[in-house]
Amino acid sequence: MGILVTILREIESVVSEVDENQMKEISNYFDMNKRIFVDGEGRSGLMGKAFAMRLKHLGYEVYVIGETVTPSLQDGDIFFAISGSGSTKFVVENAKVAKGLNCKVLSVTSKADSPLAKISDEVLIVPATTKYDTGEKKSVQLLSSLFDQSVHIVLDGLCLILSMKNNITNEMALKQHLNLE
Amino acid sequence: MGILVTILREIESVVSEVDENQMKEISNYFDMNKRIFVDGEGRSGLMGKAFAMRLKHLGYEVYVIGETVTPSLQDGDIFFAISGSGSTKFVVENAKVAKGLNCKVLSVTSKADSPLAKISDEVLIVPATTKYDTGEKKSVQLLSSLFDQSVHIVLDGLCLILSMKNNITNEMALKQHLNLE
Amino acid sequence: MGILVTILREIESVVSEVDENQMKEISNYFDMNKRIFVDGEGRSGLMGKAFAMRLKHLGYEVYVIGETVTPSLQDGDIFFAISGSGSTKFVVENAKVAKGLNCKVLSVTSKADSPLAKISDEVLIVPATTKYDTGEKKSVQLLSSLFDQSVHIVLDGLCLILSMKNNITNEMALKQHLNLE
Amino acid sequence: MGILVTILREIESVVSEVDENQMKEISNYFDMNKRIFVDGEGRSGLMGKAFAMRLKHLGYEVYVIGETVTPSLQDGDIFFAISGSGSTKFVVENAKVAKGLNCKVLSVTSKADSPLAKISDEVLIVPATTKYDTGEKKSVQLLSSLFDQSVHIVLDGLCLILSMKNNITNEMALKQHLNLE
Repeated sequence: MGILVTILREIESVVSEVDENQMKEISNYFDMNKRIFVDGEGRSGLMGKAFAMRLKHLGYEVYVIGETVTPSLQDGDIFFAISGSGSTKFVVENAKVAKGLNCKVLSVTSKADSPLAKISDEVLIVPATTKYDTGEKKSVQLLSSLFDQSVHIVLDGLCLILSMKNNITNEMALKQHLNLE
Repeated sequence: MGILVTILREIESVVSEVDENQMKEISNYFDMNKRIFVDGEGRSGLMGKAFAMRLKHLGYEVYVIGETVTPSLQDGDIFFAISGSGSTKFVVENAKVAKGLNCKVLSVTSKADSPLAKISDEVLIVPATTKYDTGEKKSVQLLSSLFDQSVHIVLDGLCLILSMKNNITNEMALKQHLNLE
Repeated sequence: MGILVTILREIESVVSEVDENQMKEISNYFDMNKRIFVDGEGRSGLMGKAFAMRLKHLGYEVYVIGETVTPSLQDGDIFFAISGSGSTKFVVENAKVAKGLNCKVLSVTSKADSPLAKISDEVLIVPATTKYDTGEKKSVQLLSSLFDQSVHIVLDGLCLILSMKNNITNEMALKQHLNLE
Repeated sequence: MGILVTILREIESVVSEVDENQMKEISNYFDMNKRIFVDGEGRSGLMGKAFAMRLKHLGYEVYVIGETVTPSLQDGDIFFAISGSGSTKFVVENAKVAKGLNCKVLSVTSKADSPLAKISDEVLIVPATTKYDTGEKKSVQLLSSLFDQSVHIVLDGLCLILSMKNNITNEMALKQHLNLE
């Protein structure tokens, strides 16, 4: 079996256990009048940025923790955190601050019993092996690659749900797409 | 059919046309004594960063164009570019400079006849719809989502080839993984 | 004479030739209802980010070219470019695109006759040696250090003008300051 | 008195109290065989990046915490932290981890009795008002602007000391400067 089919099978086995009803539940928090703050470290953080970029194309007001123009969090904002282990120290600490400010905390993690999951208003479980464990979903890939790939697809799935809900066409999204480089 | 299965089918139809022999060909350029520079814009750029991060875990000397500590390109370096359309202006211009400096230019794009492909020493075709076209591989997803997802998997496939070639275990990779946040 | 006094004298000799009336002229373009896009490469880019961050604290809607959530430029936006030489390739190309979209192009450079200056609606000259020349203002420092330092002070001067104009106190600015890390 | 002269006077009053002998002491830690990791948040982080970029031009192996290709810290590395208050939470936590890994911790802060200063092997005091206090050095500028400006000059002073020590000319530095954009 080829390398790519092997990876696709791994992703399929993870993604098939993701709860699409829970994705829809989470999509209901996304409101054009709410500000969304995305947080994550390492490759999870990069998937978070890809998600934030697409949300922007869909018309949402979205920020990434750590970037230049990110404003202060306030009561009513959405804090969206991604962490495979659910225990990435600074992400969990930020989530606690967000919670204390009365933000809604939404998270994506592989661990339902992690500190991040416990503090979240809604959790989406993406049950892939991450870098610190050798869980049920064994992977031939290193570190959290399988988690990153699965999260990428799941978050783009969330974008697809949101684009359909808002009737956003490719042309409309393209207009929001950066026209500089 | 669920959202996630729909996306997975789309990815499968793209990835099944990626040439694994060409991936192995490209993997032969990756040498622990070579410096690798990754370039890409937007979501392609984020996939490039995820690739660069993993290459670092595998022990390669790798840099991302635009980051703080990226040194000057020199004769013999590898310039690795990602662009769905193959015509992202600044990526193509950088590839030309790299070529002029006698670097090897490797690229990932959906378009075999694009400016980026034409200038490259090796091209890996990932035949997914991108934001400016409605090619053969139609997608229900917006913009270049299908390209980004497919590139993510293909580049992680390249990492898997490289990790097997170098006998790198999860434990070895974890030691290279940033231990701060 | 100590190192720090030497640097301060160099900065003083540059900054004393900056036209404060021109700074006030430029400050008039900053409108709470306008979107401001900041662009720059290398250390000039970092000074641009520091400027953008402070503008955000002052309440402006500001974005940095190259960051995740930067939207598409539109008619009426402000494009603010920083380039010591005034000929940084991609900054000049972006300024041309911005101009073509009917944005106001404001720039900071050391060269009044540079491509960037020529295309700009307003130019602020910061006459410091940059990395490609050995102009009038000789420096013991390497590359464009003197330009970067002078630009930092001049842009913070612009922020001071704007904060006074809008009666923004430290307490008000602190509320806009990111409360996560 | 003009805006720029006012700012320069403020900077001068801060910088005149910076101990140049301590700067030389700290410069002795910079060794071409050591890896240097720079950490900071917000505008202090941007000054850290400007410093890291210049160190790279001088030939040092330097990384910025949070960027894509930053490797894991190891025994013997230098951890260089910047924080006006000396109590920026994640910077202090990272410094503790670095200390525990047997790295040398060097820091720049306005507060000699701060958590960051206490944990550091060497501290450089830049006694400017920061965003959370109204200390001795009052400033008409908002938040930590005066600290950022002073740190910029002090770190470039450190670069000047290092460039003289290593006999690095502008031409040599220019060769290390990124030749792409």
